[in-house]
Amino acid sequence: MNEEMKIAIYGYGNLGRGVELGVRQNPDMELVGVFTRRDPQAVKTLTGVPVYAAEDVEKFAEKVDVLIICGGSASDLPVMTPALAKCFNVIDSFDTHARIPEHFANVDQAAAGSCHTALISAGWDPGLFSLARLYMNCVLPEGKDYTFWGRGVSQGHSDAIRRIPGVKDARQYTVPVPEALERVRAGENPELTTRQKHTRECYVVAEDGADTALIEKQIKEMPNYFADYDTAVTFITEAEMKRDHMELPHGGQVIRTGATGQENGHHHVMEFSLKLDSNPEFTASVLLACARAIGRMHGRGIYGCKTVFDLAPADLSPLSPEEIRAHLL
Amino acid sequence: MNEEMKIAIYGYGNLGRGVELGVRQNPDMELVGVFTRRDPQAVKTLTGVPVYAAEDVEKFAEKVDVLIICGGSASDLPVMTPALAKCFNVIDSFDTHARIPEHFANVDQAAAGSCHTALISAGWDPGLFSLARLYMNCVLPEGKDYTFWGRGVSQGHSDAIRRIPGVKDARQYTVPVPEALERVRAGENPELTTRQKHTRECYVVAEDGADTALIEKQIKEMPNYFADYDTAVTFITEAEMKRDHMELPHGGQVIRTGATGQENGHHHVMEFSLKLDSNPEFTASVLLACARAIGRMHGRGIYGCKTVFDLAPADLSPLSPEEIRAHLL
Repeated sequence: MNEEMKIAIYGYGNLGRGVELGVRQNPDMELVGVFTRRDPQAVKTLTGVPVYAAEDVEKFAEKVDVLIICGGSASDLPVMTPALAKCFNVIDSFDTHARIPEHFANVDQAAAGSCHTALISAGWDPGLFSLARLYMNCVLPEGKDYTFWGRGVSQGHSDAIRRIPGVKDARQYTVPVPEALERVRAGENPELTTRQKHTRECYVVAEDGADTALIEKQIKEMPNYFADYDTAVTFITEAEMKRDHMELPHGGQVIRTGATGQENGHHHVMEFSLKLDSNPEFTASVLLACARAIGRMHGRGIYGCKTVFDLAPADLSPLSPEEIRAHLL
Repeated sequence: MNEEMKIAIYGYGNLGRGVELGVRQNPDMELVGVFTRRDPQAVKTLTGVPVYAAEDVEKFAEKVDVLIICGGSASDLPVMTPALAKCFNVIDSFDTHARIPEHFANVDQAAAGSCHTALISAGWDPGLFSLARLYMNCVLPEGKDYTFWGRGVSQGHSDAIRRIPGVKDARQYTVPVPEALERVRAGENPELTTRQKHTRECYVVAEDGADTALIEKQIKEMPNYFADYDTAVTFITEAEMKRDHMELPHGGQVIRTGATGQENGHHHVMEFSLKLDSNPEFTASVLLACARAIGRMHGRGIYGCKTVFDLAPADLSPLSPEEIRAHLL
């Protein structure tokens, strides 16, 4: 890996912009360009990197080492990732948990069949949190783990509120319940309901004359998204939304408690936590570290679909094996 | 891996006993026996597993998949691990940081030359904390990381106190300074001196008639061990030592703070923490998870010396790739 790794971005939203900025922090990488389904002339990148039409992407097959696909999990990635894995080494951040086995199989077939290497479901959850759960489960086989998310903006929940008639804009924060976190950290191994783990805070800009009481009721009773949670709805002005809610912070904890010893008398608590000012920029940073590993695996002739569980940690690092042993072990 | 992996223990102290108990939590493993340099007749295991003389270990070369070497880093492991790697797949918890490159080279030569697979420096630090540092550095290239240890018993420091004339017994706790931890978590990126990061608490049983003032002075002024720290010395009775200080708790934190974005305006905090009732039992649990990976790598013909950085996380798990994708991703 003496030559710079050539990265390209497919899809230019918050995540794509995060990748664009993140490449600058990785001196062993070079950004070839951004591919967009919009009119390339109308897209201006943050760093001046060139923009190309998504339909032209295959022309760049020989010029890109790893293509980072920055699309949505609902409808984009299930189609894009298998299609692009036929021409590129690819990475996505697919996070629809129930559909991972199906997505994995589709991407694996496309990548393996064309001698490419693909990574799905990278980021922080799935991604770093998945790694934390795996390491913790392996080290403490007899235990129980918990994942808490927040305080942070859930884009999916924000979108769900925006679809309600009379809503102009909305931001939803997922918030872990402090008492639940404390009980878990204390090793109580509590059984926690959905409602006991997280609350939901919604900030809503209503259209002029909209029935705010009805909007609040529709939010709080929305199945899957809000009905199982204690939800707080606050109506704010457009100016307040712009002033207080334009950032996309997030974070959370993975905690595993377990026991060892003669009578399992010794208790242990393992915790991995993140507190992020920008969810998309941090996710992008994870994707870039993973891109390094995928490029290297491809260079070794390891093809097909991978997850973070398959990446040797050393392959994520720009440092040599000697350097990481000397400085990080 | 349908057959049980055959594990053996070389060296039967606190860590060896931890491995013995830990095997029971891993249904895909079987404990062949314990090897000791003491008289095997005089050693009684906790679970009734057979005890053999260390000098007979080579006779078991065909009966053991992975040998876990539970010796000290100062004088045992630099000799034992390379010697045993000629006949076995081996794992140790070598933790003398400055000597890791030399130890790695010696073990690599022995293992590679005899088609064995070896892992050095496994445990939690080095080990899980090393992994945390690596992942964090790869994900946030522009940042700063900190490792705090404790509150926990440092065996090396306890031993150093016991060597002072007039000391009958001693226990030393390493304690992180709460204000330092808070400043790091707040993203202040402080430059911290040794003294600002940790304090040392010593509990000492003096011999009858010993000069406790002199002992206290000798502890506090001991170079490398205590002179650079704020150290508290408390004299206690033998009964108090037995009542309050027979456990070996430990733990700590790895924290990395870093920034991303246009002007590096978004800050992120990553933290991995451990709170352990029993340092040796937890370390043993890590070694066992690593043994699984080393056994599998050997089965694939991957030989030589490895560190935790080289182990694909999936190889640590008893679950199949499909299962870990479905349940942990």
